[in-house]
Amino acid sequence: MNVAIAADVKADQSATPSKNSQAQNGMDVLLDLVSDDLKAVNALIMKHMQSDVVLIPQLAGHLIAAGGKRLRPLLTLASSRLCGYKGDRHLGLAACIEFIHTATLLHDDVVDESDLRRGRDTANALFGNKPSVLVGDFLFSRAFQLMSRDSSLEVIRILSDASAVIAEGEVQQLMTSNDLETDRDAYLKVISGKTAVLFAASCQLGAVVADRPQNEADALEAYGQYLGIAFQLVDDILDYSAKQAALGKTVGDDFREGKMTLPIILAYEKATAGNNAEELAFWKRVIEELDQSDRDLDHAIALMHKHNALEDSMSLAREYVQKAIDALAIFPDSPEKNALVKAVEFSISREF
Amino acid sequence: MNVAIAADVKADQSATPSKNSQAQNGMDVLLDLVSDDLKAVNALIMKHMQSDVVLIPQLAGHLIAAGGKRLRPLLTLASSRLCGYKGDRHLGLAACIEFIHTATLLHDDVVDESDLRRGRDTANALFGNKPSVLVGDFLFSRAFQLMSRDSSLEVIRILSDASAVIAEGEVQQLMTSNDLETDRDAYLKVISGKTAVLFAASCQLGAVVADRPQNEADALEAYGQYLGIAFQLVDDILDYSAKQAALGKTVGDDFREGKMTLPIILAYEKATAGNNAEELAFWKRVIEELDQSDRDLDHAIALMHKHNALEDSMSLAREYVQKAIDALAIFPDSPEKNALVKAVEFSISREF
Repeated sequence: MNVAIAADVKADQSATPSKNSQAQNGMDVLLDLVSDDLKAVNALIMKHMQSDVVLIPQLAGHLIAAGGKRLRPLLTLASSRLCGYKGDRHLGLAACIEFIHTATLLHDDVVDESDLRRGRDTANALFGNKPSVLVGDFLFSRAFQLMSRDSSLEVIRILSDASAVIAEGEVQQLMTSNDLETDRDAYLKVISGKTAVLFAASCQLGAVVADRPQNEADALEAYGQYLGIAFQLVDDILDYSAKQAALGKTVGDDFREGKMTLPIILAYEKATAGNNAEELAFWKRVIEELDQSDRDLDHAIALMHKHNALEDSMSLAREYVQKAIDALAIFPDSPEKNALVKAVEFSISREF
Repeated sequence: MNVAIAADVKADQSATPSKNSQAQNGMDVLLDLVSDDLKAVNALIMKHMQSDVVLIPQLAGHLIAAGGKRLRPLLTLASSRLCGYKGDRHLGLAACIEFIHTATLLHDDVVDESDLRRGRDTANALFGNKPSVLVGDFLFSRAFQLMSRDSSLEVIRILSDASAVIAEGEVQQLMTSNDLETDRDAYLKVISGKTAVLFAASCQLGAVVADRPQNEADALEAYGQYLGIAFQLVDDILDYSAKQAALGKTVGDDFREGKMTLPIILAYEKATAGNNAEELAFWKRVIEELDQSDRDLDHAIALMHKHNALEDSMSLAREYVQKAIDALAIFPDSPEKNALVKAVEFSISREF
């Protein structure tokens, strides 16, 4: 879903001015650097998502073939190059990572009864809950099949660890939904798990396939982790973005689910600190009781602006961007390092 | 679910006569033989299903800790012993197999909107769709985490292959539901995938950890595959069993979903061969259109009896039981071999 949003944002950037053009360039540097590798990865993805059971490539293709920026595979490709890797194991691993990511998207889109009413165009909405779950399982299994043939126990350890942490992060997110006591530490733990850990693994694998020392693997893992956190922070901010709304994109999905993302956490903190009974009652009603009417989203956004919640969230994202860039300090300058720096800058230049 | 039914059937057997006592003995021989190993496996299962995210052990425990016969782990334990294995890798692998099985059960219980109305006491009904999916993902990831630490690429290949085939079998089953053109070959392909392949892998791993020659791994794989097919055939027969109904157990779940299991396939074949317009119209209405009223299940069972569909299904199950036993022929007589033979006899002695 993140990738899809990134793709949408990018598609619109041709019509918008300088800041976004910069962002587009940020991703383009990375894309240009590994474009041949990426073509090879896309071919592997198409090849390995096939099955005699025709519904599987049909449903998987709905998500995979339809595009997305392949952000995670791009990170693996660029990290491998950064580490001087000359072989082709990174191609298969990049495909595995996209399969794992797609499986989590399919499972993330499985909704409970109440959400079906929105009629969103998810694989789930088109095909039903169960095929989405099972095709996710297939892609996940396929990823480990490919790893068992082309790779090492170390790689399988990294990606199975990441997968377990993703599931934990997703479950933790469910548990914090509708719970106004969720604080920023709990939130950061959720997004570290559900999003950042796969970014971290994607980058770390570059050092692993290139057989580089542990400190380089650790540096790339840290880079990916911080990038992932920044990326998810921006995603969560964009869900309340007036710009997004003006562009005709969906806004307020998180709000309607009562998801405790940072903008709400910060706005609620301020309401608590100011002992503002009206605001406290508002958040309790719309988030805890999920009792919402049409104009509540606008009011929520207004409260966020009143308390600088979106700006403060963005500041935190910028801190993580800087941490990500700093993590690359051990690597000498190179086109690959430059591309990774530009990519992380892109992650927050998506305007709100 | 299969294991749960087996457990239920066994629990009732204390009150029923000779044939069932025999069956109970069949499983008891296996249980007695590996009881210490099984305790160790249960301890590993409890240990590795833990997580800081409390909903995970809570939901997983609903299925795992509540019991079940641990049929698949038992097969790994006995197969390892049959192959003379003296180490303890088989314990961790047996736990991995139970995690994979539990993940498939959790995902299998995720239902579309229409099924929620039945209010069954599945993890899904208690906790909602999404936690069931995510906890399944966690257990599945945990299985590969454990394998990446304690095991070999060969083991990971076998279990990731099995997992992919299970998902394919489950999707294929969805595609054949409500489709009266589904024939017995298509049905056997579905149950080979969704059920038998994990039985096969569970047994095959015994030869792999013991580092035995390929022909022994193949023999155990074949044994497990045939056993799994027989087991699922009996499960599907029991869903139309008058005995089950008399015992107060659920009957007709498959019927209500329009699932094309062998009893329906055979009854429909006979209706087609006899060009019986009334029966053809009945099956079309209840299976294809899923337009069912209260007495349709009884009528379906009556048609199955009229056409010997349950008896013929049972004959096929017996054929697979014999094939399973024959597959063990290359192994010399031993308590382990005897226990595996008794276990396969148990699989069809669950009366209907």
